[in-house]
Amino acid sequence: MNAINWSDWRIPDGKALDLSRLPTLPKASSETDKLQWPARMTVLAEELNRLQAMLYASKTRGLLLVLQGMDTSGKDGCIRTVFAHISPLGVRAEAFGVPQALEQRHDFLWRIHGKTPALGEMVIFNRSHYEDVLVPVVKGQIKHAECEKRWHHIRHFESLLSDSGIAIVKCYLHISKDEQKKRLQARLDDPLKHWKVQASDFEDRRHWRAYMHAYAQAIQATSSDTSPWFVVPADSKAYRDLMVAELLVHTLQSMTLCMPRPTLDVRDFKMK
Amino acid sequence: MNAINWSDWRIPDGKALDLSRLPTLPKASSETDKLQWPARMTVLAEELNRLQAMLYASKTRGLLLVLQGMDTSGKDGCIRTVFAHISPLGVRAEAFGVPQALEQRHDFLWRIHGKTPALGEMVIFNRSHYEDVLVPVVKGQIKHAECEKRWHHIRHFESLLSDSGIAIVKCYLHISKDEQKKRLQARLDDPLKHWKVQASDFEDRRHWRAYMHAYAQAIQATSSDTSPWFVVPADSKAYRDLMVAELLVHTLQSMTLCMPRPTLDVRDFKMK
Repeated sequence: MNAINWSDWRIPDGKALDLSRLPTLPKASSETDKLQWPARMTVLAEELNRLQAMLYASKTRGLLLVLQGMDTSGKDGCIRTVFAHISPLGVRAEAFGVPQALEQRHDFLWRIHGKTPALGEMVIFNRSHYEDVLVPVVKGQIKHAECEKRWHHIRHFESLLSDSGIAIVKCYLHISKDEQKKRLQARLDDPLKHWKVQASDFEDRRHWRAYMHAYAQAIQATSSDTSPWFVVPADSKAYRDLMVAELLVHTLQSMTLCMPRPTLDVRDFKMK
Repeated sequence: MNAINWSDWRIPDGKALDLSRLPTLPKASSETDKLQWPARMTVLAEELNRLQAMLYASKTRGLLLVLQGMDTSGKDGCIRTVFAHISPLGVRAEAFGVPQALEQRHDFLWRIHGKTPALGEMVIFNRSHYEDVLVPVVKGQIKHAECEKRWHHIRHFESLLSDSGIAIVKCYLHISKDEQKKRLQARLDDPLKHWKVQASDFEDRRHWRAYMHAYAQAIQATSSDTSPWFVVPADSKAYRDLMVAELLVHTLQSMTLCMPRPTLDVRDFKMK
């Protein structure tokens, strides 16, 4: 099969970005390709498992995966699939909702910093500090100058993590407005999905273009060599998960991890 | 009396600094001045109390006091005296020792960020993130380039706090090597002070000049308009405490705090 070209979806630093020009579906995939996706996912899941065990044992690097996207873009689903076969030992998923009272009395990175990965850890942010340059912008709660300041703080915050050995991968799960319509309708139709339905989903949908603009601005202002953004076509769930898995495996492979040296000579120990 | 000219001791941004040229005792104070210090301290303590209550009630600003200095320079004593008459409600003192295992697996600002003041709070750092650009430098554990990166991260971290409403006051308690000798001897002589004696105090004393150089470099690299450093002459305990109190009162006064508006009309309530 053709390998997933995740590098096609990497957003270069500082270039103007128009999300409406980026596809929400993978480039023409043959049916043969699609049939091979599940097999590829199995290979990646095993590789991810092997690499994560090495990350955990060696404790020389850490990994932060930031997942952002409109409602129904598949953040929860992606985490469930990609990390299905990984031990929670050394892996954490952190969800960030509307800031609570105490959080609001701190800078916007305070609650985020506390949840960042330690060396040896892989952490998934289900939403993140990027919410603070999206929601308040669309709602008109902060001016452009304030928003620029926040991008600036985000860049420096992420460079601090990167300087400390944390690799950062940021994925924007890119779905079309039509696909969201189908998925929201599916939630309304299925009583088992009702718990996920929120009034804000429908409110945010009305501001679709404003959100696309805010996302594009934030992504182009904060994509860098050490903390890149990827715009992941997310109308196809299988392709979305495959691409995130490919990205993680690639990132871990490029760390050239190895198991730590034993602290004792194993030959000294004889089983009796 | 002559007011304490704290502004004399403010370190301008980026200027070369030689701590051995700065006095560890106040400029010639007449005995009459000295006699008036206790009265001035009482006035300041009351004002600090009044302003802190307003800070706590209004929750629009916060204050961070960073205390650094060689062993016996008086960080503990200064906190004890200046905050003696202040309610711990809204006031926290945080001490930072040698980083523990989990802390070492995070960036050096991780444990610091979690302890920063919320709006409404006054927080004292008894040692701080500055330890990470002092101890490892003197011990040769990090190179100059790594140290410069840390200064850079510190500047951005403090600008994040400042942008979020936190006023920052950083005090280096400046004692002479001779005065330290007297104070260490006093600790050795007094069984009630033995708990404070640590082998590292004597070790660090041997590297006095290296510490002075590392302090000077860190202070000049991180003093700014919104996060200034003050070199407080600290051979006189009374003067040291007075100056820190003056600084805090001045900083709180310049916030032009006021009590929050009541959320209800108090005239609606009649006592029966």
